[in-house]
Amino acid sequence: MGKAVIRCASTDPEFTVIGAVDLGDSLDSFISDAEIIIDFSFHDATQGIAEKAAEHRKALVIGTTGHTEADRMAIEKLTATVPTVWASNFSTGVNTLFWLTRKAAEILGADFDLEVIEMHHRQKQDAPSGTAATLTQILSEVRNLQPESDLCHGRNGIVGPRSDREIGVHAVRGGDVVGDHTVFYAAQGERLELTHRATNRDTFAKGALRAAKWLLGRPAGLYTMQHVLGLEP
Amino acid sequence: MGKAVIRCASTDPEFTVIGAVDLGDSLDSFISDAEIIIDFSFHDATQGIAEKAAEHRKALVIGTTGHTEADRMAIEKLTATVPTVWASNFSTGVNTLFWLTRKAAEILGADFDLEVIEMHHRQKQDAPSGTAATLTQILSEVRNLQPESDLCHGRNGIVGPRSDREIGVHAVRGGDVVGDHTVFYAAQGERLELTHRATNRDTFAKGALRAAKWLLGRPAGLYTMQHVLGLEP
Amino acid sequence: MGKAVIRCASTDPEFTVIGAVDLGDSLDSFISDAEIIIDFSFHDATQGIAEKAAEHRKALVIGTTGHTEADRMAIEKLTATVPTVWASNFSTGVNTLFWLTRKAAEILGADFDLEVIEMHHRQKQDAPSGTAATLTQILSEVRNLQPESDLCHGRNGIVGPRSDREIGVHAVRGGDVVGDHTVFYAAQGERLELTHRATNRDTFAKGALRAAKWLLGRPAGLYTMQHVLGLEP
Amino acid sequence: MGKAVIRCASTDPEFTVIGAVDLGDSLDSFISDAEIIIDFSFHDATQGIAEKAAEHRKALVIGTTGHTEADRMAIEKLTATVPTVWASNFSTGVNTLFWLTRKAAEILGADFDLEVIEMHHRQKQDAPSGTAATLTQILSEVRNLQPESDLCHGRNGIVGPRSDREIGVHAVRGGDVVGDHTVFYAAQGERLELTHRATNRDTFAKGALRAAKWLLGRPAGLYTMQHVLGLEP
Repeated sequence: MGKAVIRCASTDPEFTVIGAVDLGDSLDSFISDAEIIIDFSFHDATQGIAEKAAEHRKALVIGTTGHTEADRMAIEKLTATVPTVWASNFSTGVNTLFWLTRKAAEILGADFDLEVIEMHHRQKQDAPSGTAATLTQILSEVRNLQPESDLCHGRNGIVGPRSDREIGVHAVRGGDVVGDHTVFYAAQGERLELTHRATNRDTFAKGALRAAKWLLGRPAGLYTMQHVLGLEP
Repeated sequence: MGKAVIRCASTDPEFTVIGAVDLGDSLDSFISDAEIIIDFSFHDATQGIAEKAAEHRKALVIGTTGHTEADRMAIEKLTATVPTVWASNFSTGVNTLFWLTRKAAEILGADFDLEVIEMHHRQKQDAPSGTAATLTQILSEVRNLQPESDLCHGRNGIVGPRSDREIGVHAVRGGDVVGDHTVFYAAQGERLELTHRATNRDTFAKGALRAAKWLLGRPAGLYTMQHVLGLEP
Repeated sequence: MGKAVIRCASTDPEFTVIGAVDLGDSLDSFISDAEIIIDFSFHDATQGIAEKAAEHRKALVIGTTGHTEADRMAIEKLTATVPTVWASNFSTGVNTLFWLTRKAAEILGADFDLEVIEMHHRQKQDAPSGTAATLTQILSEVRNLQPESDLCHGRNGIVGPRSDREIGVHAVRGGDVVGDHTVFYAAQGERLELTHRATNRDTFAKGALRAAKWLLGRPAGLYTMQHVLGLEP
Repeated sequence: MGKAVIRCASTDPEFTVIGAVDLGDSLDSFISDAEIIIDFSFHDATQGIAEKAAEHRKALVIGTTGHTEADRMAIEKLTATVPTVWASNFSTGVNTLFWLTRKAAEILGADFDLEVIEMHHRQKQDAPSGTAATLTQILSEVRNLQPESDLCHGRNGIVGPRSDREIGVHAVRGGDVVGDHTVFYAAQGERLELTHRATNRDTFAKGALRAAKWLLGRPAGLYTMQHVLGLEP
């Protein structure tokens, strides 16, 4: 991801890459010349980077995940002193899909049956995808469902009619698909399908750069991609 | 459409059909027993029906289109005195698509190229569909485009790179397709596709019934499906 | 289905409906005037109808299913003496999909991962659909897979990379979808998707009428829809 | 494309890359150790490469296009003496789509309306794509249509019902889409959709490698991808 960020920033006239560090290297030699720091390193490294950012009063974009609760609290304390965006997924499209999925579920109401299909490459270890899990969590919240009992991860046999409380989630695997997600809202006489297709990893890098641009001139504080996209006040 | 409304109302426990009139028949024999009047007659007949509704103070749902400006003003004056919903398309899904299309365009911004594909049955006279026209109008408003010059109704030859200001609109025709519409937002590395598929005309009848239920107990005034769906204050 | 056949035949200039019988009624009054008999009655009734067809030497289209092995053998014996088409699914499109699915699997070979998605209305009792079962059987034959152990009816948890021997089958349920089926062939860098969408039951009636036209002038014998469509010699 | 071939061959255990030359370099230093030569250079260079292959009796895969008729004849004469595959598109999936498209059109017959949608990145100069042009040519051949007059590159206005002789072709442009193609066959009550999606250029490199493997041990002569895929005798 770091390489993708550098590649994308290099072709964007609003950015100048003044330095890049790998794990173990130090930011000290160029941090004072930077306006913003983008961190896609590793969960262990983020706290140290946040300390440097706070010390030098630099805006910060964090894309690492998998922190312990203690780590997370320490980082959040540091990031309260400088403008920071922290997100697990920087794709503009996926974050928009999250928002649209919630709104569509609220508008359409209980007459619409909910199903989610995701497709990923053959090597993917987990199913359904983390993004699909977020989608079903959003749908469950709007419809007051229980993710543990109301999700249906496949149907086989004489299963009988579909329940109103059911969300079908289907994990398709094959080839090298980067990631497709579709949310279905199906009623009598019509259906709505909201689909996102990722075609390469640059989309995540570009999302981080969008967050970076958005941060400049903001007050100190911790923001999410929903703030960057103007989806939360 | 009238038959579809009667059929759908008959199977909905919240409704009792107390009378149905065709063009030329009179509402007088049962209008005092009605709570609501649903009009899918013909543009010429709507004003007379609105007069009856106003006289008897009954809520009104109007689904006719094609009125002259004078007719429209006369009807609007009458409908200001009783709770009325007037819409050209009652499908919940299509109205939701309209709303989502606007929001997605606002959120995603100018990095996303906009294209619309619609598919309808082989007998359809006009292209693109009225629903597609509404979709491109919404997109044009958000992006400050000119529907006359910036819409592209097909590409053929050495057309060169696509302009930022362009909205491609593609009218596919074949078979008996009731109506499919997809709005594409395509950027580097990702795309979003919002699709609505109508499978029968009941969806429009059910939308009218949803409007009817929503009207009961409302103050007098003229509303749209965007109000019914809670999408406008 | 009988009503759909009569409706479709009535609007086809090549057909004259000279009689229709329900279960229990007799064909005797008009069978001598008929050129062809179309049977969508019930498995119990088909043998009696085949006896009449054989006696009067009339061509026969059979659409009933669910016979015992003994019934089937008795009917097959009778239908050997008159031109007969017997099929469980008369849709031209679905039968074409069956044929294309086999050919595509043969051509593309083992580098392509196989997945099937079907979507049906919320009331459907069984999953996956009979048509999806035929699709996976065709794929299993071409790839020498075991339908019992190599089909995967959903994925949930840390399932690890997808096996080469796996066919994912996903049954989506919602709304009033008549029946959609997609076969995916996904490899590195590309994928092929073969999709059939049924929009109403007339498609099955029209397939039976196509079989009827094809039968006229054929030698006696039992044929399938693959013969009608010219897909088998 | 040359780099993609080298990258894909390097990770395939059946291949050893023994040399790579750019325009202007010579094959002489390693050609005697090679079993096969893959040429994605430039139309001007192909004749010289074919001469070397013929002299050393090495199998040859050619992926260059844009030759004059004279060049083409000279190359064809040379390639008659060694096993050669020459193709403008090596993707297994696209070549399979070509074949399936023809067969489906033949099977489904004139009741099915034909439409083609392709989607490519925003920079693409020409519309519709070359692959879409091949698809409409195949459909035109099967249905005895005239590509000049029966293709419809967009619909706008009161166009009236669709003609039986019409093939709609829709060129969608946006983002960085490598290339999607869908052929629609739409009838009353059903439709079939055949879709190919390319996700990266490796698919073309892998097709060239598949051609290379297929060539080993073949008699001398000029073959196409249809031969490699077993689609022509």
